[in-house]
Amino acid sequence: MLSTAELNALAEEIRERLIEVVSQNGGHLASNLGVVELTIALHRIFTTPKDAIVWDVGHQSYTHKMLTGRRDRIDTIRTEGGLSGFPKPYESEHDAFVAGHASTSISAAMGLAEAKRQRGDDGYVIAVIGDGAFTGGMAYEGLNNAGKARGNLIIILNDNDMSISKSVGSVANYLSEIRTKPAYFRFKDSVSHLLERTPMVGRQIKDALVSSKSKLKTAIYHNTFFEDLGFDYLGPIDGHDIDMLCGALMRAKRISRPVLIHIATQKGKGYQKAEENPGAYHGVSSFDIEKGNPDISNEDSFSTAFGRALVGQAIKDPSICGITAAMKYGTGLQFFKHKYPNRFYDVGIAEEHAVTFASGLATGGLRPVFAVYSTFLQRCYDQIIHDVALQHAHLVLAIDRAGLVGQDGETHQGIYDVSMLQSVPTMTLYSPATYRELRHCLNACLYGEEGPCALRYPRGKEDGRLAFLDDLPCEDHHLFPGKKKGGKVVLTYGRIFAEVYPAAQKVGASVLKLTKLFPLGEDVCELLCSYKAVYFVEEGIRSGGVSERLASQLAESGYRGRIHIRAIEDGVIPQASVESTLAHLGMDEAGIARFLEQE
Amino acid sequence: MLSTAELNALAEEIRERLIEVVSQNGGHLASNLGVVELTIALHRIFTTPKDAIVWDVGHQSYTHKMLTGRRDRIDTIRTEGGLSGFPKPYESEHDAFVAGHASTSISAAMGLAEAKRQRGDDGYVIAVIGDGAFTGGMAYEGLNNAGKARGNLIIILNDNDMSISKSVGSVANYLSEIRTKPAYFRFKDSVSHLLERTPMVGRQIKDALVSSKSKLKTAIYHNTFFEDLGFDYLGPIDGHDIDMLCGALMRAKRISRPVLIHIATQKGKGYQKAEENPGAYHGVSSFDIEKGNPDISNEDSFSTAFGRALVGQAIKDPSICGITAAMKYGTGLQFFKHKYPNRFYDVGIAEEHAVTFASGLATGGLRPVFAVYSTFLQRCYDQIIHDVALQHAHLVLAIDRAGLVGQDGETHQGIYDVSMLQSVPTMTLYSPATYRELRHCLNACLYGEEGPCALRYPRGKEDGRLAFLDDLPCEDHHLFPGKKKGGKVVLTYGRIFAEVYPAAQKVGASVLKLTKLFPLGEDVCELLCSYKAVYFVEEGIRSGGVSERLASQLAESGYRGRIHIRAIEDGVIPQASVESTLAHLGMDEAGIARFLEQE
Repeated sequence: MLSTAELNALAEEIRERLIEVVSQNGGHLASNLGVVELTIALHRIFTTPKDAIVWDVGHQSYTHKMLTGRRDRIDTIRTEGGLSGFPKPYESEHDAFVAGHASTSISAAMGLAEAKRQRGDDGYVIAVIGDGAFTGGMAYEGLNNAGKARGNLIIILNDNDMSISKSVGSVANYLSEIRTKPAYFRFKDSVSHLLERTPMVGRQIKDALVSSKSKLKTAIYHNTFFEDLGFDYLGPIDGHDIDMLCGALMRAKRISRPVLIHIATQKGKGYQKAEENPGAYHGVSSFDIEKGNPDISNEDSFSTAFGRALVGQAIKDPSICGITAAMKYGTGLQFFKHKYPNRFYDVGIAEEHAVTFASGLATGGLRPVFAVYSTFLQRCYDQIIHDVALQHAHLVLAIDRAGLVGQDGETHQGIYDVSMLQSVPTMTLYSPATYRELRHCLNACLYGEEGPCALRYPRGKEDGRLAFLDDLPCEDHHLFPGKKKGGKVVLTYGRIFAEVYPAAQKVGASVLKLTKLFPLGEDVCELLCSYKAVYFVEEGIRSGGVSERLASQLAESGYRGRIHIRAIEDGVIPQASVESTLAHLGMDEAGIARFLEQE
Repeated sequence: MLSTAELNALAEEIRERLIEVVSQNGGHLASNLGVVELTIALHRIFTTPKDAIVWDVGHQSYTHKMLTGRRDRIDTIRTEGGLSGFPKPYESEHDAFVAGHASTSISAAMGLAEAKRQRGDDGYVIAVIGDGAFTGGMAYEGLNNAGKARGNLIIILNDNDMSISKSVGSVANYLSEIRTKPAYFRFKDSVSHLLERTPMVGRQIKDALVSSKSKLKTAIYHNTFFEDLGFDYLGPIDGHDIDMLCGALMRAKRISRPVLIHIATQKGKGYQKAEENPGAYHGVSSFDIEKGNPDISNEDSFSTAFGRALVGQAIKDPSICGITAAMKYGTGLQFFKHKYPNRFYDVGIAEEHAVTFASGLATGGLRPVFAVYSTFLQRCYDQIIHDVALQHAHLVLAIDRAGLVGQDGETHQGIYDVSMLQSVPTMTLYSPATYRELRHCLNACLYGEEGPCALRYPRGKEDGRLAFLDDLPCEDHHLFPGKKKGGKVVLTYGRIFAEVYPAAQKVGASVLKLTKLFPLGEDVCELLCSYKAVYFVEEGIRSGGVSERLASQLAESGYRGRIHIRAIEDGVIPQASVESTLAHLGMDEAGIARFLEQE
């Protein structure tokens, strides 16, 4: 058994390796540096896979991977064929549950714990969830149910006083209050002592406090919300003190009710540059350890192009509001916040609230724009139908990271939004391929359309090959004629046009590039009908996408030519660079050229 | 201005009318009887539409409708062309926001309030939300943001100690505790008095309590979670005392911070039969006022057929668990709960948690079945992709109220589930048309399939016209040959087969009835290809549905025949009987017969 000193040395060693690996491969640095001691303590007190650890969001699981047989492969993290940057049960039996989206761990852990209870397995289930994920309503649904859980369930609230952007909302204030006050146990003890030492009535008051019917006792002894919900609350505890962490975990093991352990950690702990600016080291590309120069979020990208375009509109229109769900930097909304703080809303990791709140703003006469990653928009399907479309609200969804995302892998691919939104009544969707088109589409969504509108654009930069689009007029769709009139035509949209266009030129096919995906006028179908073969290339899930929609319309219209669809048939797409993924899917230039050679 | 006595007389009059109308038209009785006094008080203190009232779920808005110019039309409620059973902004400017799904009101109201603030409008926005809706995470996301709202926002927590099923979870216990203890103000006052009257140190302790740095003060004076979140908390208040309600509302109006008023009401108030059994009078069909015989939930229906079938499986298999999101009776799970309470979970109105929790159970080795209405399953799109499909969890979604639902109208139509689930990787979906097929499909989902599975079935009873199906083998699909081999074929599934089959017989067309919707073997496409014309009839949204999927596959395969699709093109379908709605959509027998006459 390692001594405390040895454990601390291990922590330092792990930290160095983490910095080294993330500086090479990119990844989530600050959050991983924050939980080194916690992870060591967890694996000292518990034994996976008999005991299960459920990491919320999961981007803080690197140390866990190193301690569970994957240390020698940690340098492959986030690379094609390498370790995932998130927990993956198919990667290791020590990864109890998939993660990537926030606020799911309590629900999943409660399920695992109930299963163990039902099956007579005495193992423990531990959910580790950050204060950021606590701003998501699903965490609360989990808490509300887990407070009465009968299994061996322990929830660790990893409170680092910030989520991805600074933690927002009243719960953050509440946690901050209980975090900064003297440790709760000491507080309880000192109240008892104070009262015991008080002459005359002190003792009586203390006895009254201890009486089960005393309201004062309820007020003092049950002074955290978590206790009100049925948890035994332990904390706050220094999350970088391995001994204290082990003590709390041992204590939690002995308690038969659900336990919530509240620990305070520092994001970026041990790497000064990340401690000072944890937001900049949340999710990074490779960087220089000495210089500490991770990607800064206002470098040229679709996100910043969007952020700047929104500011450009907001200067002219005081009714524009900007909304983010804890992704101020990721979505480029920092520019808007800086300039118009009074019209900016960071709602926390609460996409559902964001959409319905935006619909309220719109109903009240404002022009809200909710900027959100495609993969997280999946959280809002019901709200978009029920609270926006049925409310006839005019608002704009700015969908970032639409399409393939690369190294984050399965859990973050932005491939469902087109299919999801196409089923929503009265929905309008644009898909710009360049920054200039993005500005045009934003303007169209704000002023040219009614009802719910959205524009979707990819992660990263504009493709240099598309510079020629800047010389063309911005239209809902544009035809690039091929060699032969009435020959082959390819329908596509968005960034993938950069692969489709040169491939089409090789085979002499025409290309119909959509900028507005729906609703579509009848002219699109009519145009396609004038070709002898129609090819669709769609960087999104096939089911419910634009290709299926148009192919079925062509079929209904009696079109007699050939139809071919290349879209994403299987939504499980592992981590790899976007280029490599496109090649696997047959959607790079060469793959599309082969596709177009089919008759 | 009416006197208190006159207001109480008005309340009685409204109550009588409510009972009368709901006994004729069906609707939500217990919840409406519970808020008569609240609604009167709200309209006495506030002025709509300048002030906006946002009703959560909205089925309790009948009194509101009667007090806002719709009293003479209240007898048309829930009928075709009549008043909606839910708030509808297009019906009246006094209905501030659409409702139908739970837990949305705080978010919407905060949006409306922020819009008023930004636009310099000094009107108030009042959200009225029940304790049941408080079990939904979205309410918490709303609270977490609204606690710092700067607009004129008032939240009324209508606490009737039960949601649709009995309120569940720790929050319910918490509310129950603060509801049943002496009124909060009185409590605060009495503590102060007690301490003042305590000789010697009492005064000192009191002074210490009042000192802003005192931890005790925090513990005693801020003893509700709502205050911790930033609200001024007023309550608990008797929700049937109009004077007290008016007093609290006046007080709330004068407070510049967000206010939460906690009122205690009785569901079914004033109609003894509903007071005694509010669950039975939650949502009812027409009934006899004297006898009080609303639809009882264990009468013959797809829901009860499902509930009984699940019990039948659970007898043989101890790993089966039943989960509901506050719809124990609606989904027929009451039988399961009664027989297997230890394997039954009512998670509250928390569909997101339900899915991820079920995935945890499945990962732990159990066989969870989550029974949920189609329209509420929309809340879980992301969880089904992220926490179930990517986790490779094998669980069963039992989707009730799939297809058209009738009088509940737009907000409750079950028309998106097929499209939504078809995009989910590895998903399997069945669509039984009879009770017998339902039993078969449940068994197939539990034991014949892997990964995420679902079966969907309509509201109400089996169609008597389908009795002949009971004599056929249960297969994934079944061909009913028409007069002419290779002529017309209709592809359809589910209840609508009862309309399609006789229509097809009229024109001599074959019918291919699917029971398993996806994944589909290639044989289905091949079979369709052997006909000269393929017709699709789908009681669901077209976009992403089975028709589009198959039509696009036929087109790709080079099919040269004619293709026609009849599905729901526009998801906004107003209230009317299912029969009438089918006729409007051209999906009744006559409409389909006309459709099939097309070449």
